[in-house]
Amino acid sequence: MEPRKRFILEERDIPRRWYNIVADMPQKPRPALDPVTRQPLTQKDLSRIFSEEAARQELNTVDRWIEIPEAVRDQYRLYRSTPLVRAYGLEKALDTPAHIYFKNESVSPVGSHKLNSALAQAYYCKQEGLTNITTETGAGQWGTALAYAANVFGLELAVYMVKLSYEQKPYRRSLMQVWGAQVVASPSMSTKAGRRILTETPNHQGSLGTAISEAVELATTVPGCKYTLGSVLNHVTLHQTVIGLEAEKQMEMAGEWPDVVIGCFGGGSNFGGISYPFMRHCLGGEHAGTRFVAAEPEACPKLTKGQFMYDYGDEAGYTPLLPMYSLGHTFTPAGIHAGGLRYHGAGTIASCLLGEGRIEAVDIGQKESFRAGVLFARTEGIVPAPESAHAIAATVREAIRAREEGTPRTILFCLSGHGMVDMAAYDRYLTGDM
Amino acid sequence: MEPRKRFILEERDIPRRWYNIVADMPQKPRPALDPVTRQPLTQKDLSRIFSEEAARQELNTVDRWIEIPEAVRDQYRLYRSTPLVRAYGLEKALDTPAHIYFKNESVSPVGSHKLNSALAQAYYCKQEGLTNITTETGAGQWGTALAYAANVFGLELAVYMVKLSYEQKPYRRSLMQVWGAQVVASPSMSTKAGRRILTETPNHQGSLGTAISEAVELATTVPGCKYTLGSVLNHVTLHQTVIGLEAEKQMEMAGEWPDVVIGCFGGGSNFGGISYPFMRHCLGGEHAGTRFVAAEPEACPKLTKGQFMYDYGDEAGYTPLLPMYSLGHTFTPAGIHAGGLRYHGAGTIASCLLGEGRIEAVDIGQKESFRAGVLFARTEGIVPAPESAHAIAATVREAIRAREEGTPRTILFCLSGHGMVDMAAYDRYLTGDM
Repeated sequence: MEPRKRFILEERDIPRRWYNIVADMPQKPRPALDPVTRQPLTQKDLSRIFSEEAARQELNTVDRWIEIPEAVRDQYRLYRSTPLVRAYGLEKALDTPAHIYFKNESVSPVGSHKLNSALAQAYYCKQEGLTNITTETGAGQWGTALAYAANVFGLELAVYMVKLSYEQKPYRRSLMQVWGAQVVASPSMSTKAGRRILTETPNHQGSLGTAISEAVELATTVPGCKYTLGSVLNHVTLHQTVIGLEAEKQMEMAGEWPDVVIGCFGGGSNFGGISYPFMRHCLGGEHAGTRFVAAEPEACPKLTKGQFMYDYGDEAGYTPLLPMYSLGHTFTPAGIHAGGLRYHGAGTIASCLLGEGRIEAVDIGQKESFRAGVLFARTEGIVPAPESAHAIAATVREAIRAREEGTPRTILFCLSGHGMVDMAAYDRYLTGDM
Repeated sequence: MEPRKRFILEERDIPRRWYNIVADMPQKPRPALDPVTRQPLTQKDLSRIFSEEAARQELNTVDRWIEIPEAVRDQYRLYRSTPLVRAYGLEKALDTPAHIYFKNESVSPVGSHKLNSALAQAYYCKQEGLTNITTETGAGQWGTALAYAANVFGLELAVYMVKLSYEQKPYRRSLMQVWGAQVVASPSMSTKAGRRILTETPNHQGSLGTAISEAVELATTVPGCKYTLGSVLNHVTLHQTVIGLEAEKQMEMAGEWPDVVIGCFGGGSNFGGISYPFMRHCLGGEHAGTRFVAAEPEACPKLTKGQFMYDYGDEAGYTPLLPMYSLGHTFTPAGIHAGGLRYHGAGTIASCLLGEGRIEAVDIGQKESFRAGVLFARTEGIVPAPESAHAIAATVREAIRAREEGTPRTILFCLSGHGMVDMAAYDRYLTGDM
């Protein structure tokens, strides 16, 4: 492995504000609609489910910068800034003239970027006097992050975990429990939605859609309890922009600017987190040539093969209708190991930007993603999460193209998390069982 | 959780030399002996098994400081300095007047301190023209670190993994395989030692002793192959002193000096790594009141209940005879989850210092260790490795004593690794199955 170059920010340079790209978008995304009245959602509608502040941020199309609360920044300081790393080893292995950088979000105490928003959402709930929060989780990265954050701010947390993951990923479940969360396999008998699904399909293995239905039902029926979401929505993406804002300063330290920014894509918050702070310069007329590439799994290709439509966020149809590229809210993707990318729709901001041609999308097969993951582990020393391996695979494609075309380029991708808790998936890949 | 204070060194302050405590010890440890001739081991004897440089370092009783090779330091830079953290959250939970600091070695890419020596040992083997290395691993932390290091320096690695761990800890096995190592369950049929053990006891579940026998046999019979060890020996402890040397500078940044230094104890390299740089001041007449506490498991109490003797390092009796506190080389500890602490003997330096009364030892029950581990996860946000949880439990005892006696003190402990790959053990604890 080659020696690596890491760029770390001074503590005073850790961002104090998140970046709200909607304020800069010449054409705003269409509004989310109430599923019954089909009227644009108001803050009042949203705050039935979410904290007041999350609801306010969700609808904010005006303020470019949103202050990061000091209590959240205090927690960020434990693991931020995350390193920006020049991937010399990967470059050498690919024999590419491209310069490859990655932003290493895997160093957070939960092992992924999800904590950036979990801390913010839990903090707002606590500030507003709530005692309980709830959410769903698929692969378990979001649930783990929220368990950590709920513990930080002294909130009770109930996590509805997709049943398939509950059984396949016991390490994630135990992590949440160590941090004090209650973890329920979804669909469960504890909600109306769960009972309905189990009555219709007794062996239902669960999906993000079923788990969201259960968590939203809990939040709307239990006093003092609100719901939180780990991706898709504008305010979640907003919190993740801390990634790209740091990366921007770190790329300056490295004396380069990315020609291509790459992120894996589930609901869009990790992708938006790394991309939008760079895209703001494009929207302002600078760096017009920068490309933004979303890497989604072949098994759940909403960006490359979905339709733009108003669709529900969950399977039962409890959530608002969102204007998004979607495979349909009842779409059930194959049980790939990158559980965090198995979501049927793309967030409204990303959907709008895709429609305008500001974002490119590529779909990556599961084997290609693991091949890239193992290559990365052997050249850069970090075993990536199966989700993040999609961003690496897209990076590998770009780097090989740079070699074939003989045109150097600077690539930046987000390593959203490590795969230490996903080794069973790597084992399947290494033994050819995939 | 309380906000934490982290101390990180500037890159230029990452140590350039390791500290060899033997040079400062007024009474040197007795020599290791050849098992056949009972004569003190020479460098030539040792280099039959180990790299020349490791053998040289092992017998060096003269040089206080040993240069860290630049290529190793290049690799250290990827994760060092590791943070020194003031554990406000733990202090508050224990309502103690003690100040608690921990040195967080879990941030290394393999999740533990083991990498500090793995990189050094692999580097020396490569420098000396070897192509293959071998080792044994119990819990898997050492094997994982060596797999990473062998990949860094382009060496082939065969790891003999204790069969019980091979089956119980598939995530560790997969991690080693992702980094390209060959992993063999020990006892195996691939060595004479393994065949003998399996002939006598067909269902033998393996132990560090059996795995060492197999690895040493491979190293002595295959040309171009040498053996490496993850703890116990002087040169391994030497490499780990980078921990304490950093911590010393970081405690200065914090404006405090530890009254008590605590490390978990398997073979002694993590304990020595955090302790000896501080102990050097005691040996020099300063800070005479500083205490050094080794935390070992109740199930393998070589320090608190072992005898000082010349004993073999392995089960088959292939290794030199070491002057150490030991439970006997055929002792088989219960199958506790802290596999890294299941070793029958203590390194010669630690044994000598224990005999002189410079080290205290405490033994910690398994439940107490996990109780401390969960408390730490909930107050400081990091799930500790089961081994490290022993150091935390000893810290908790000290902090409670400080409260009960009304005497403040400054405690420093080494968080040798995280427990993300050990969640099955936490699950057993949380469900009462322990």
